[in-house]
Amino acid sequence: VFDSGIGGLTVVRALRRRLPGEDIVYFGDTARFPYGTKSAETLVELALEDAEFLLARGVRLVVVACHSASSVALEELRRRLSVPVVGVIEPGARAVVAATQKHRVAVIGTSATIRAGAYERAIRKVESAKAKGQTGGRRELTIVAKATPLFVPLAEEGWVDGAVPELVAREYLRPLVDEGVDALLLGCTHFPLLAGVMGRVLGSGVKLVDSSEETAGEVERRLGKARRTKCEGQTGGRLRVYVSDIAPSFESLAARFLGESPTEVMRASVGE
Amino acid sequence: VFDSGIGGLTVVRALRRRLPGEDIVYFGDTARFPYGTKSAETLVELALEDAEFLLARGVRLVVVACHSASSVALEELRRRLSVPVVGVIEPGARAVVAATQKHRVAVIGTSATIRAGAYERAIRKVESAKAKGQTGGRRELTIVAKATPLFVPLAEEGWVDGAVPELVAREYLRPLVDEGVDALLLGCTHFPLLAGVMGRVLGSGVKLVDSSEETAGEVERRLGKARRTKCEGQTGGRLRVYVSDIAPSFESLAARFLGESPTEVMRASVGE
Repeated sequence: VFDSGIGGLTVVRALRRRLPGEDIVYFGDTARFPYGTKSAETLVELALEDAEFLLARGVRLVVVACHSASSVALEELRRRLSVPVVGVIEPGARAVVAATQKHRVAVIGTSATIRAGAYERAIRKVESAKAKGQTGGRRELTIVAKATPLFVPLAEEGWVDGAVPELVAREYLRPLVDEGVDALLLGCTHFPLLAGVMGRVLGSGVKLVDSSEETAGEVERRLGKARRTKCEGQTGGRLRVYVSDIAPSFESLAARFLGESPTEVMRASVGE
Repeated sequence: VFDSGIGGLTVVRALRRRLPGEDIVYFGDTARFPYGTKSAETLVELALEDAEFLLARGVRLVVVACHSASSVALEELRRRLSVPVVGVIEPGARAVVAATQKHRVAVIGTSATIRAGAYERAIRKVESAKAKGQTGGRRELTIVAKATPLFVPLAEEGWVDGAVPELVAREYLRPLVDEGVDALLLGCTHFPLLAGVMGRVLGSGVKLVDSSEETAGEVERRLGKARRTKCEGQTGGRLRVYVSDIAPSFESLAARFLGESPTEVMRASVGE
């Protein structure tokens, strides 16, 4: 699993729950964070370097946990790498289309993710593939895309319960309820930490779709038999966490996103 | 005035209030934002490119409105440029030392700014220069440095009044009051937008020191006579805003930070 920072550790958390016997290598490119502001060309280069770092450690599958890299570099990675590559956008897009009854979905993310429009494109693609398989007329899917930048520092600060996140969630999410949305895609790896408060604000009429969780599910399906052979009855797969820069707050942040304290954390240089 | 993004427009706002007849050129390097995560070497390079962009437009003084660049590149800029260079850290440091009666000050900023410790160094330097001029013993100055990352998206979202900023300010700032601090330095160009709510939460016993305002004051002093000759009785100096990347939200964000809608906004490439 690689990401531009530490957010992708929520994907690792979901993977460890689903595949407890699996060894996982994580690379967070914290020295070159954030990827969201970089050009497509640069992003492809960085993603290739990150993936090669993981391949050199013997991985059988690569998860691109960074939304910007998933949106821009996935095809090139699939062309160039000899192992399966799973991005973080397609699984969530499929799940949110499956979840809606009213054909009204919302996606929330950072300003950069929402501006780039990758989730909307992915959802439209899933929807039109689905429509092709159906006969007769179909209802147009409504997508409400909304940037919710305050959720990022709330997750990083660990302010995931209490008055502040409650009020912020209300401010951002109540308008989505008013618009009749019945499925909400969390389009940022930071957001699962706030799923509890979001669920309370939205009420039971809106399904929450967690892209980290859906990505882990996709990995589980892809690994298929090979995984089951390897993992059956196993627990305690090894997790190695590499980052290109270690900030003093790294350990506590990582534990928050991962849901456990990583025991093997190493600094690694990638690129020049 | 240059900055890695749009925050530096609060310095421009303060400058336009103090020096209404002065022409100002602003460069926001939004394409290469943020500077806070870049190495010192890279920062010096970027700052030199940004400053040269301004010099090519005929400026008589350069303001480094980016905290990271101010902290790392100021000496090199002063060595290489033929015009005065004003950073955004020293003026605030001087003002907060002057403001405290109890020798207990606090500085707030982004995680990157606080982690880098530039404000604490600058405050210590001011304090020890002051102590040299005094005879007899002196009380040690206590500096409480605190990262307050939620203030950044609050300012960008325009959530500067109401329940959410009030609660966030209370959460961050009340502990500073409890620690007996009587002067608070706003160590981020975004924070002046939240000065109102911060002041209400802190109460009258804590002086707020706004580094954007203090930087503008320093510019006013430096320009001295030349300015007065040029500006006396004038209003309506020209403001040109250049950015290296224009996001769709740029205009509304810029207006929020500047306090007026910029009329001349242009895209500019700097570096390669």
